[in-house]
Amino acid sequence: MKKVLCLAMIALMVSAVNLNAQSNHEFPEGTVPNIHNINGAQYPRIGKDKRTYFRVYAPDAKKVEISFRGEMTKGDDGYWTLVSKGPEVVGFHYYTVIIDGVETADPNGKPFFGMGRWVSGIEIPEDGVDYYKAKDVPHGTVSESWYYSNVRNEWRHCFVYTPACYDKEPNRKFPVLYLQHGFGENEYGWANQGCANFILDNLIAEGKAVPMIVVMDNGNIESRTPLPGEKPEDVRPRMINTFPKVLLNDIIPHIEKNYRVLTDRENRAMAGLSFGGLHTFTTTLNNLDKFAYIGGFSGAGSIDLNNLDEAYGGVFKDRKAFNDKVHVFFMGIGSEENPERTKKLSDGLKAAGINNIYYESPGTAHEFLTWRRCLNEFAPLLFKK
Amino acid sequence: MKKVLCLAMIALMVSAVNLNAQSNHEFPEGTVPNIHNINGAQYPRIGKDKRTYFRVYAPDAKKVEISFRGEMTKGDDGYWTLVSKGPEVVGFHYYTVIIDGVETADPNGKPFFGMGRWVSGIEIPEDGVDYYKAKDVPHGTVSESWYYSNVRNEWRHCFVYTPACYDKEPNRKFPVLYLQHGFGENEYGWANQGCANFILDNLIAEGKAVPMIVVMDNGNIESRTPLPGEKPEDVRPRMINTFPKVLLNDIIPHIEKNYRVLTDRENRAMAGLSFGGLHTFTTTLNNLDKFAYIGGFSGAGSIDLNNLDEAYGGVFKDRKAFNDKVHVFFMGIGSEENPERTKKLSDGLKAAGINNIYYESPGTAHEFLTWRRCLNEFAPLLFKK
Repeated sequence: MKKVLCLAMIALMVSAVNLNAQSNHEFPEGTVPNIHNINGAQYPRIGKDKRTYFRVYAPDAKKVEISFRGEMTKGDDGYWTLVSKGPEVVGFHYYTVIIDGVETADPNGKPFFGMGRWVSGIEIPEDGVDYYKAKDVPHGTVSESWYYSNVRNEWRHCFVYTPACYDKEPNRKFPVLYLQHGFGENEYGWANQGCANFILDNLIAEGKAVPMIVVMDNGNIESRTPLPGEKPEDVRPRMINTFPKVLLNDIIPHIEKNYRVLTDRENRAMAGLSFGGLHTFTTTLNNLDKFAYIGGFSGAGSIDLNNLDEAYGGVFKDRKAFNDKVHVFFMGIGSEENPERTKKLSDGLKAAGINNIYYESPGTAHEFLTWRRCLNEFAPLLFKK
Repeated sequence: MKKVLCLAMIALMVSAVNLNAQSNHEFPEGTVPNIHNINGAQYPRIGKDKRTYFRVYAPDAKKVEISFRGEMTKGDDGYWTLVSKGPEVVGFHYYTVIIDGVETADPNGKPFFGMGRWVSGIEIPEDGVDYYKAKDVPHGTVSESWYYSNVRNEWRHCFVYTPACYDKEPNRKFPVLYLQHGFGENEYGWANQGCANFILDNLIAEGKAVPMIVVMDNGNIESRTPLPGEKPEDVRPRMINTFPKVLLNDIIPHIEKNYRVLTDRENRAMAGLSFGGLHTFTTTLNNLDKFAYIGGFSGAGSIDLNNLDEAYGGVFKDRKAFNDKVHVFFMGIGSEENPERTKKLSDGLKAAGINNIYYESPGTAHEFLTWRRCLNEFAPLLFKK
């Protein structure tokens, strides 16, 4: 291993030289580095007009692309460059660097789990908006917490947001929101690209949301790709079948044993984005004795309005009972991701007498800015009954 | 952004197909996937003989390499393969995938910040050794904690390990170990590739270590590469100059304000690996009024034994005073990374009357297994005076 180490050290030096080689290069006027770049890395950059600038050193590659943005142009100096055709939508977007057809993560940027893999991310600043930023308010913490899953027979971990007052008030118990990612993400998503911790910090500091604990776990049980013997269409049903069991039998007991939490249904909420919305509907609507608040963000699940009385074991049959039990039934969606289906569901349920809240995020699609906004709308409604 | 989203969804499906395309492929006998692979990803794999197996789909690439391990061989099916020449050393090793000369992170593996960038990692199982694994013992948590740095005028975060009993004993205060990464890593290193949380969980559960808090922050202040106007040789002095100020003025006050900690020097330790060892020596030896325990793991710093009385502001001049104040002065190193210099320093200090402990990790180089072992040796010595 000695040789390997020497190589590692040379690689470190070479890397420093490579990055440094950019120092003779003039940055496009008015551009700043992406906030997720590692210290010292200058690309990707973002312009005042919200166009993105990519630059990759690949003298021996035949073709270099940036995912969703297209082919880069090779310069005589071995650097490939690309400027986005127009301004990008504000908020968070994934990117990968595709080298001669191989999709890779950018080692010069903080990795985010999205698109089903560890990829890279770029944040386009949203002028005058700071609800998802670190502000000068008391900050909660996000903890990685390990537990043994008897359902899965394995060690698992979840991330747990505790509000700033959690440690200051050692006798206080808190309500809990179980918050799920989508099919493309994992348990790291909400507290990284989702900024859930900062959103909660800010809402709580302004007195808009009740101090609460937020638990973020991985809902994509075992594998996003078919297991031996499985067909592609078996993957999601496997997850939908297993995750509620893990949540109810492993995660919730772990949280209630190890955190100071209120354990009645009135103090337990669940929400999720995209596929996590389906997990939320499946889990909560089949277990209304355990949850009083429900949120689907770009993922309200499908409910057959023509057979409403049969859906989810007949939970909607007695409208009044449902409305009494579920204090918030929230459906959020981005205006640019064909919101009609969700709007129709919300309207249909209202017409049928089922209370619910519809929220449409303006100008955003199936992306994290939609979900940050959904959380920012949803969290203030919780635990106020 | 609508089009981008549709592309994202197609990319997701294509990715699923690509991974799935491996299902007709027979895995080399007796191999298992790397534990850091994302769910469902089958490569890299590790054999019973501890050889590593890499496989990358890159039909259009001219050359594909795995860092430190060499060139891959292209098959007719567009997959490139590589098997390590012999068994790899047990423990954790970095790798990157080099596509036509461009070094990239593997999106199918958990990313680790090492080699100065976000790269990939492979764990070679160590038979019969479990001190750094998740075991059936009470588990502490690792929290991400945000604070405003007045020294740096920016929001920063650190990771904080709190032992399993922290929340169970709300009136108890705990000693603190400030634990630093090296020049190639960042604040994520110790609680990921370092397994610091599991090492502490296990030591505490066995009664070998005192329950303590461990704080892990980024010691590579601002940029690992030269800033405008800096020469490469200015980088490390800038960090060595600034980090102790951040630690003493920002991090320690933040921890003491927000966690239940003992705040006297007898209950404060610092250790670091490689460049973090130099940070440790610089910080602690210049501030012995604040630290009573010191550890350098593969990074003991350099002390001129011929001018011992002058080193670090004369801290060694009064041997007895030093020995009375510093209860543990620990120097660890791997047997395969030229340990002679550290051994000579330890012996020379001992000969001069300065108590210290020398630990040599057998068979390991400048790598995380050395540092896991150093932590496992060092932590039980803390806070027992």
